Amino acid sequence: MKFLVLNGPNLGLLGMREPGVYGTLTLADMMKQLVSYGREKGVEIDWYQSDLEGELVARIGASRGYYDGIIVNPAAYTHTSVAIRDAIQAVSLPCVEVHLSNIHAREPFRHTSLTAAVCVGQILGFGPMSYRLGLDALVEHLRREKE
Amino acid sequence: MKFLVLNGPNLGLLGMREPGVYGTLTLADMMKQLVSYGREKGVEIDWYQSDLEGELVARIGASRGYYDGIIVNPAAYTHTSVAIRDAIQAVSLPCVEVHLSNIHAREPFRHTSLTAAVCVGQILGFGPMSYRLGLDALVEHLRREKE
Amino acid sequence: MKFLVLNGPNLGLLGMREPGVYGTLTLADMMKQLVSYGREKGVEIDWYQSDLEGELVARIGASRGYYDGIIVNPAAYTHTSVAIRDAIQAVSLPCVEVHLSNIHAREPFRHTSLTAAVCVGQILGFGPMSYRLGLDALVEHLRREKE
Amino acid sequence: MKFLVLNGPNLGLLGMREPGVYGTLTLADMMKQLVSYGREKGVEIDWYQSDLEGELVARIGASRGYYDGIIVNPAAYTHTSVAIRDAIQAVSLPCVEVHLSNIHAREPFRHTSLTAAVCVGQILGFGPMSYRLGLDALVEHLRREKE
Amino acid sequence: MKFLVLNGPNLGLLGMREPGVYGTLTLADMMKQLVSYGREKGVEIDWYQSDLEGELVARIGASRGYYDGIIVNPAAYTHTSVAIRDAIQAVSLPCVEVHLSNIHAREPFRHTSLTAAVCVGQILGFGPMSYRLGLDALVEHLRREKE
Amino acid sequence: MKFLVLNGPNLGLLGMREPGVYGTLTLADMMKQLVSYGREKGVEIDWYQSDLEGELVARIGASRGYYDGIIVNPAAYTHTSVAIRDAIQAVSLPCVEVHLSNIHAREPFRHTSLTAAVCVGQILGFGPMSYRLGLDALVEHLRREKE
Amino acid sequence: MKFLVLNGPNLGLLGMREPGVYGTLTLADMMKQLVSYGREKGVEIDWYQSDLEGELVARIGASRGYYDGIIVNPAAYTHTSVAIRDAIQAVSLPCVEVHLSNIHAREPFRHTSLTAAVCVGQILGFGPMSYRLGLDALVEHLRREKE
Amino acid sequence: MKFLVLNGPNLGLLGMREPGVYGTLTLADMMKQLVSYGREKGVEIDWYQSDLEGELVARIGASRGYYDGIIVNPAAYTHTSVAIRDAIQAVSLPCVEVHLSNIHAREPFRHTSLTAAVCVGQILGFGPMSYRLGLDALVEHLRREKE
Amino acid sequence: MKFLVLNGPNLGLLGMREPGVYGTLTLADMMKQLVSYGREKGVEIDWYQSDLEGELVARIGASRGYYDGIIVNPAAYTHTSVAIRDAIQAVSLPCVEVHLSNIHAREPFRHTSLTAAVCVGQILGFGPMSYRLGLDALVEHLRREKE
Amino acid sequence: MKFLVLNGPNLGLLGMREPGVYGTLTLADMMKQLVSYGREKGVEIDWYQSDLEGELVARIGASRGYYDGIIVNPAAYTHTSVAIRDAIQAVSLPCVEVHLSNIHAREPFRHTSLTAAVCVGQILGFGPMSYRLGLDALVEHLRREKE
Amino acid sequence: MKFLVLNGPNLGLLGMREPGVYGTLTLADMMKQLVSYGREKGVEIDWYQSDLEGELVARIGASRGYYDGIIVNPAAYTHTSVAIRDAIQAVSLPCVEVHLSNIHAREPFRHTSLTAAVCVGQILGFGPMSYRLGLDALVEHLRREKE
Amino acid sequence: MKFLVLNGPNLGLLGMREPGVYGTLTLADMMKQLVSYGREKGVEIDWYQSDLEGELVARIGASRGYYDGIIVNPAAYTHTSVAIRDAIQAVSLPCVEVHLSNIHAREPFRHTSLTAAVCVGQILGFGPMSYRLGLDALVEHLRREKE
Repeated sequence: MKFLVLNGPNLGLLGMREPGVYGTLTLADMMKQLVSYGREKGVEIDWYQSDLEGELVARIGASRGYYDGIIVNPAAYTHTSVAIRDAIQAVSLPCVEVHLSNIHAREPFRHTSLTAAVCVGQILGFGPMSYRLGLDALVEHLRREKE
Repeated sequence: MKFLVLNGPNLGLLGMREPGVYGTLTLADMMKQLVSYGREKGVEIDWYQSDLEGELVARIGASRGYYDGIIVNPAAYTHTSVAIRDAIQAVSLPCVEVHLSNIHAREPFRHTSLTAAVCVGQILGFGPMSYRLGLDALVEHLRREKE
Repeated sequence: MKFLVLNGPNLGLLGMREPGVYGTLTLADMMKQLVSYGREKGVEIDWYQSDLEGELVARIGASRGYYDGIIVNPAAYTHTSVAIRDAIQAVSLPCVEVHLSNIHAREPFRHTSLTAAVCVGQILGFGPMSYRLGLDALVEHLRREKE
Repeated sequence: MKFLVLNGPNLGLLGMREPGVYGTLTLADMMKQLVSYGREKGVEIDWYQSDLEGELVARIGASRGYYDGIIVNPAAYTHTSVAIRDAIQAVSLPCVEVHLSNIHAREPFRHTSLTAAVCVGQILGFGPMSYRLGLDALVEHLRREKE
Repeated sequence: MKFLVLNGPNLGLLGMREPGVYGTLTLADMMKQLVSYGREKGVEIDWYQSDLEGELVARIGASRGYYDGIIVNPAAYTHTSVAIRDAIQAVSLPCVEVHLSNIHAREPFRHTSLTAAVCVGQILGFGPMSYRLGLDALVEHLRREKE
Repeated sequence: MKFLVLNGPNLGLLGMREPGVYGTLTLADMMKQLVSYGREKGVEIDWYQSDLEGELVARIGASRGYYDGIIVNPAAYTHTSVAIRDAIQAVSLPCVEVHLSNIHAREPFRHTSLTAAVCVGQILGFGPMSYRLGLDALVEHLRREKE
Repeated sequence: MKFLVLNGPNLGLLGMREPGVYGTLTLADMMKQLVSYGREKGVEIDWYQSDLEGELVARIGASRGYYDGIIVNPAAYTHTSVAIRDAIQAVSLPCVEVHLSNIHAREPFRHTSLTAAVCVGQILGFGPMSYRLGLDALVEHLRREKE
Repeated sequence: MKFLVLNGPNLGLLGMREPGVYGTLTLADMMKQLVSYGREKGVEIDWYQSDLEGELVARIGASRGYYDGIIVNPAAYTHTSVAIRDAIQAVSLPCVEVHLSNIHAREPFRHTSLTAAVCVGQILGFGPMSYRLGLDALVEHLRREKE
Repeated sequence: MKFLVLNGPNLGLLGMREPGVYGTLTLADMMKQLVSYGREKGVEIDWYQSDLEGELVARIGASRGYYDGIIVNPAAYTHTSVAIRDAIQAVSLPCVEVHLSNIHAREPFRHTSLTAAVCVGQILGFGPMSYRLGLDALVEHLRREKE
Repeated sequence: MKFLVLNGPNLGLLGMREPGVYGTLTLADMMKQLVSYGREKGVEIDWYQSDLEGELVARIGASRGYYDGIIVNPAAYTHTSVAIRDAIQAVSLPCVEVHLSNIHAREPFRHTSLTAAVCVGQILGFGPMSYRLGLDALVEHLRREKE
Repeated sequence: MKFLVLNGPNLGLLGMREPGVYGTLTLADMMKQLVSYGREKGVEIDWYQSDLEGELVARIGASRGYYDGIIVNPAAYTHTSVAIRDAIQAVSLPCVEVHLSNIHAREPFRHTSLTAAVCVGQILGFGPMSYRLGLDALVEHLRREKE
Repeated sequence: MKFLVLNGPNLGLLGMREPGVYGTLTLADMMKQLVSYGREKGVEIDWYQSDLEGELVARIGASRGYYDGIIVNPAAYTHTSVAIRDAIQAVSLPCVEVHLSNIHAREPFRHTSLTAAVCVGQILGFGPMSYRLGLDALVEHLRREKE
């Protein structure tokens, strides 16, 4: 099994950005841990971060045939991007949306997600663990699909 | 570690209710599997289902001192219950909100959660697996808290 | 044929409550008349009143296999209860929503119904006759279904 | 007793229009059945269909002194016509609003009624039976009024 | 004079729940003080707490003939319960709404009250004193009514 | 000077319709008085009433070259008719909107006017006098225009 | 008969302020013309202008017993002043609201009036003539009242 | 192939109405050009204009069996007519909505279309050319359908 | 202890203004009673009424150092005045908001308070008693503060 | 004549993405057909696709002096991009907005267009034909402009 | 050059009011510094503070002919005063709106400005420096205007 | 001191784009003047323009440690970009938002700023001078911070 893990805008600043909210781990550290967690579960992981909505769209669009599923943290674009929603819907791969923080405990404009409706499910609020739970969920979702 | 798992209205109908959407497992089956999953992880589980908002409120209120955390699927009350929100906030135990279905892919009135803001995090869309992921998340959340 | 007739909050006060609006008949009197009206039409009726949303939910959930249809006056819960809506949808029995008063001629928050969308139809404004019309409608609906 | 039965826009297409939703009966057939149902109940019926809001307004306005009550299916004008509402209020005859389909199970703009507030009551979702129930309701409403 | 004092959901947790906001007094302590305050004013008090909306509805419905007035703190149900509103309106006893905290200084969904409109008045923000002021208000309201 | 006076839906019921609100004068009486009031002021008046939005639209469209100005009481169409608004704008004749009742003291949906924005001005609340004031206003408006 | 004519904020700038919209007449000129117009009609007029909402409130409050009616142009306060609305309602004198410009043809926040609902009627869009029409309306309104 | 071309309210004023916006061509001229354009494309055209919503509804309803498709410019009714929407949906003929002006560059209430959702497509902003493009679109749509 | 009692617009008309709603007591009478009630409680009272928002703002601003607390009935300004809200917040004295009538039982625009959020609490609906209850509340609030 | 044809996000997936909705043609095929269609009409076409909002903005900004007009399908950015709107307005070239699908028959957030208001016109719902119609419209628009 | 500097409600409390937010400088100190800053730039300054909306309106109205421009901090009236907006528009002097605090980082009702739209520009968030920047902006604006 | 000056989408078109609104200066000219203005004030300036939201996000993210502050004109992204807001908040450098035009005097969707809330302050409406004022503000803000 091979997954694509996509990280949206400002996630490259992790470890520096508001450590009280997001912790001191950098994105590279966090992804490294996820890759090794995936390996244990028999999942190969490619990860990618971009601040550009369109690059995320393009990556999703190009993922067909290369990956079995996608874990996406659209970050700020969660609340505004019809384009990422369309990309997920178009590519027809199972997708899990994850967030480090609990978006429902923050500003009102973060309480809605344009992308969640076209994903299998959504996991939020558990810091880096959100990604690992997303990986577990995606693995099992694919197993059930095969049955 | 000891967790309370709370199931809201109509979840007692699982297995009968719209099996195309919710599967053929009954709630008792599903909870039995969760209890045994918990045992493997070293977590003792009490579970409870009620169709009454106030009974869920009362159970949360009475859980302090008896449990280390709560997994709650408020079902229909997710979208309307200030009382359950207040109970979670009052009891000061870490709480994880779970949903079987992807509420963002259903009617607009199901896209908001009054309770998520006072939980640690939220997991939705993965069927019975949502509960297992919630259990994993709660276990690790409590471990991090202790450190 | 066997029907369940469900009466929501405050309907137990009928005959006392605002007689100018709701008449002087008590709920027991009204149900007695309905039971005898049903008997003439070849319908056996069980009726139930509860002030508790969750008890109404539970009753609907438990009605499957016992009744051919449900007549429900959710009263105040009409406008706020996602749980009763879910119960009706889950139980898959034909349901008719009735109201004693014309809810559209009252306060704006009474102009919407969360439950009507999952019922066969809705009858409102005719006092106790609303129930009798609901019974007639349900009988004929079931006859058409059989054909 | 003499009733006017008014049918709004597009109801003349019944039998042709979306038979999956509205059945295969033409309006003329349906009205014929209603007229004979009325005769059994001792009610004489005049019926009328118009696609023009203003003609419906005019008919209601002219019905005073000629009819004891009105059964109206304003169809699409239900949701937009202040003029029909005013006509019903002006003519001071008891009026019952009926709909073939369950408007609450359709698009959101069909969930509101400008006209229901000035009628005695509203019956919806039972196909041609909605009219017969409306007739029964109106007959009994007039009997109660006389007492 | 005899009053019913009704306490809504989560008020049973007083003394434990967010003591920074609600103080360290338990509900039983608080009610005991109120009962003795009432005795000084010549008022006998029965008090009751429930987490269940429907039980509060039922208690209000059953209070007629037994009490001269009601002091109600609907807590979380203040903002969502049409059923409690209907109960107060139906029972036709003078009712005073009280709140421990200043609901206007909290989240926006707590700024509205469905129940206040059918009460004599509303007192909020003064902690346990809100109840004593409510008692004073109700006593004097009843005296004025008698004149 | 020659004016067209247009009366919208249900105004033909004047004298019968809610006399407490609209008085006992019929429209024909009222128009007769207006015609003779116009004659004193040197204004010839044609008047017309229709319950049909489209006939009002057509009349306005055909008034160019025949009239110096229009007095219009769009009645119920005031609040919903983009078509009448477009007709007034298209015909490029000075138009005065009048209402018998004070629309701002009635239901909220009567507080807006789609047509007023394309008229010279609006006069409301003075019963039949609203038309006479409208006539005076239009006469003087045309005199000022000529200067 | 004696009328009070009240002019709201910025009306003292008439003749200077946007002459393209409001003309070149000063308020004093305009009021002088109105006073002499009133005299012809047998009406004595006191007029007053204030930029202060509270002074307008006070003037209305003090007008009882001194005047038979009020003509008020609340200008900018039309759209925001609950206080002026309360004053008009409290003083129980017939009041006519007038505006120089057509407020419905300007910015959306000028399309609503908080004060019109408690006046007899409203006249707008006719420049200084709006006041004269308001005077005529008030005179006749008082005559009808006497009959 | 035979098409019905329907023109809504005020379109009969074309050539006179705001020529700066709508040009100097009359509707008859414009339709004549369209008919001859249709002839070149092998399409026979009947055209019709009405200011009455209900006549447009009736025409659409009666078009079945006589026409292969409809080009409709509902003009002002675009934004308010549920009845025309229902007629298009009922008649089950392919329909193209056209507008002379760019409705998105005008007042906000012209930015929405109730009818577009039930048409094949919508063309707007190109003056009389909008109709010719609509005809081309409908011809090709029908050809594709046949394949 | 020394309190400032502030009365907003139109309260000077008490006794004259809608006596059915507000009683026949004048403001001076009411304040006199409050002063003597205060004296019994050991509180010296200065009272003030103004129809001007800015004078109320100025009075609040100048009250620091002279008073221990403020009782304010902002009347119509309750719903619209950010300035009075800012004054209360700026002066940092405990403030109690009072209303004679039950604002939640009146027009919707009276259901919100801009000022309550910055007060200790709010008391409404008890006529002149609202002020006495406010005084009691403020006295006890200050006593608790001192402890 | 030389046109720029701009394709927004996810349009590069055409032929793969939801073929039931968008057909099996790839974008390259579709553009090739358009280029050859353009050649017949005497129009040279450059086309470009980007998933990046900013690249579309840049392309529009750079098109001045090189192209006579633009055909743009902003896809998902239609509903959210103020930047593309500004680019179109800034470049002052005639622009036609096209869509493959009927956006009014899809989710509500697709019913609005931020960009249409600054285009000449909009064509939607006709699949690849939408582009050809857009080309025809732009050619004729430019011819009219020259006259 | 001569400027009027206007300060709205509660600004007279500066130095006392929430020093954490607004600093310890009094308004008099702040204005003194501004006057001397103006002198360096060759600008004579008159300043004025009022808690009364109408006095600010009057001052703006009277400033024509005496001043070359206005710097205004409408404080709380920024968000509610149509009257100050009208005064600025009427007086036709260039006006700059300034705020001490960043209104966009405070409560939602402070995020809108009714007055900014009729000013040259707006400067906010820089404490007393906002006024100096406003002065610089106004000086240069006037220089550009003269060119 | 070293500042980053960021310019959002379409600002590269300055001098060409709507010169009536934005002047004839190109962005390069404008930035050159700002650089030399900065040099006088002892501030070194790097400037950058991008049409891509994500590039602006990346630049802000990368500015930490290199710059003492940021002047940002997010242009069209002001109203829609949660991502730029997050970047500013994450980088923890003082930021000043500037706009050439008065956004409050333009279309309603330009009246809100998602980014202003996380900046020190906002300056708008003064053309190129807005940047110079922003530079002055930022210099002084940093001086105050050091004290």
